[in-house]
Amino acid sequence: MNYTISSAFGTEAADQPIKEMTIQRRELLPNDVEIEILYCGICHSDLHAVKNDWGGSTYPLVPGHEIVGKITQVGSEVSKFKVGDIGAIGCIVDSCGKCSHCHDGDEQYCETGWTVVFNSPDKISGGMTYGGFSEKIVANADYVLKMSETVDLAATAPILCAGITVYSPLKHWKVGPGKKVGIIGIGGLGHMAIKIAKAIGAEVVVFTTSPSKLEDAKNLGADSAVLSTDKAAMKAQRDFDMILDTVSAKHDVNVYLNALKVDGSLVLVGLPNEPLEIGAFNVVNGRKSFSGSNIGGIAETQEVIDFCAEHNITADIELIKPSEINEAFERLEKGDVKYRFVIDIKNN
Amino acid sequence: MNYTISSAFGTEAADQPIKEMTIQRRELLPNDVEIEILYCGICHSDLHAVKNDWGGSTYPLVPGHEIVGKITQVGSEVSKFKVGDIGAIGCIVDSCGKCSHCHDGDEQYCETGWTVVFNSPDKISGGMTYGGFSEKIVANADYVLKMSETVDLAATAPILCAGITVYSPLKHWKVGPGKKVGIIGIGGLGHMAIKIAKAIGAEVVVFTTSPSKLEDAKNLGADSAVLSTDKAAMKAQRDFDMILDTVSAKHDVNVYLNALKVDGSLVLVGLPNEPLEIGAFNVVNGRKSFSGSNIGGIAETQEVIDFCAEHNITADIELIKPSEINEAFERLEKGDVKYRFVIDIKNN
Repeated sequence: MNYTISSAFGTEAADQPIKEMTIQRRELLPNDVEIEILYCGICHSDLHAVKNDWGGSTYPLVPGHEIVGKITQVGSEVSKFKVGDIGAIGCIVDSCGKCSHCHDGDEQYCETGWTVVFNSPDKISGGMTYGGFSEKIVANADYVLKMSETVDLAATAPILCAGITVYSPLKHWKVGPGKKVGIIGIGGLGHMAIKIAKAIGAEVVVFTTSPSKLEDAKNLGADSAVLSTDKAAMKAQRDFDMILDTVSAKHDVNVYLNALKVDGSLVLVGLPNEPLEIGAFNVVNGRKSFSGSNIGGIAETQEVIDFCAEHNITADIELIKPSEINEAFERLEKGDVKYRFVIDIKNN
Repeated sequence: MNYTISSAFGTEAADQPIKEMTIQRRELLPNDVEIEILYCGICHSDLHAVKNDWGGSTYPLVPGHEIVGKITQVGSEVSKFKVGDIGAIGCIVDSCGKCSHCHDGDEQYCETGWTVVFNSPDKISGGMTYGGFSEKIVANADYVLKMSETVDLAATAPILCAGITVYSPLKHWKVGPGKKVGIIGIGGLGHMAIKIAKAIGAEVVVFTTSPSKLEDAKNLGADSAVLSTDKAAMKAQRDFDMILDTVSAKHDVNVYLNALKVDGSLVLVGLPNEPLEIGAFNVVNGRKSFSGSNIGGIAETQEVIDFCAEHNITADIELIKPSEINEAFERLEKGDVKYRFVIDIKNN
């Protein structure tokens, strides 16, 4: 296999800052496309991986999994894209394609394991995958999403992870008109969840620990917002069909389980490092569930991209230069971003 | 309202033994029946209530919620029973009858709260309810189950709580032919779960901490049994559609979440005093759920009684005299019972 060189922004070790480096991208296989990356969102998972918070990080590591760019080459068998189209890549760049989950469009639950766009053994090219903090990327066209040129490309990039991660469980748990949904946390995921849940037609209640974000929640479209540190207000919450938990730090989930209807589900999409504690009575009474959900499949990612385009939904972003990535990581760690950093890759 | 006197076996305080006492039972209202109690099972919840482990116990307290007896009086409007019939009572003796859950036959999730057969404010008679460790009981016939005279009445009593508590979630989570179900724990609930899950047609794998119970599990009908302290054996477990957790002490549930299929559910029916810890990745990967389930409604309780009669399923019991209740409680606390104590109430 032949390779070409791409510039990228990555890190050599968990305690090292992001710096410019060069990586290899494979030359196109018949079903591959090459994308010149225009924008890449910054997700908290990128930061966790860079710092090896979950273990399993391999260096050098180039993060980035909310990728939007222009198709610059297409393989001989590609009919889905032509040069000049907009192409987008999220978390998934490969899967077995044969198991029942791949067959059902749930590649994220592939039985033999799917390939993450970065820090994942690359079954096609060898070595590890490198993500979207880079000049260009090569991927199998089956895992590349179509995006209209007419949308705000930078503000649409976060749909590739933040958007699909909240859209998939909202659909799976049948949130829609007549349903009452709670959204815990107003970050990258939470602010997209508010917009999408509202567009789907649900009543949306937002929970936040920040008094300053109560007004933001309503501006984002929430019907109401509750300060989760207000014990009396929390105790009064009830009748939720589903509550989507976007928080990635340890927190008390029992108060939310108590706010669910009979047969309701609290669905975690955040990834706290520490285990969460659940009191038995809080699930037994009312046959409630504490569940999780992981991103979404390729077809569903295309669906949320199209849904957001149709409903004029984009992320609220802060567009940064590649040279500002380290500063952005520092601010992200403090929750100081409204609500997603997106790197303007070519503004180097 | 007029009352008659009944002898009973109850306790005056959390640190007092069970002793014989007298209680009041209301004279029959038009839709009431009176039952002369023949047998009453002993459930771990009775012991928790006696000792006030969960708080909220009111004394004197007469436990017992797996009640089988003979109908000795029927109210003027009762058509469901005649004197001499067998009648049975489980946990529920009253509910609002109007909310959507009562309407759906899920009285255990009644919006305004249902009345437990013991240690519950009695909305009809006033005072607190007294359970089945007694000579007779009066209840609204709508909450009294029908039982055939031809079954082993003593060994059928545990179906009123242990049986319905495992049957309801097995049905709700659609366990049946072609499905693989795990049962954690081989006690009063677990041993009934093995028999019922097998009769429903599922593949049944039992998890136990006791090497001595591995063989018992197979004798009860399990397809296989796994020692849950064997880390290698546990790690090899996979592809469960549902795992029913009957354990009432703190334990690690993550190993079971990892053994579930995508979209699988670990369903708790035990009631540990301490919260259980769940790692985020263990629900997020595979969109898994940690859920709970609480007994079952009246119609479903009748269904499991009839199902067990049809499939010749009864509990494995140790029949004791009322004078042996305190000793039985001590043995129950140590898990030393195969698998349910049932009191032969008239053998006093």
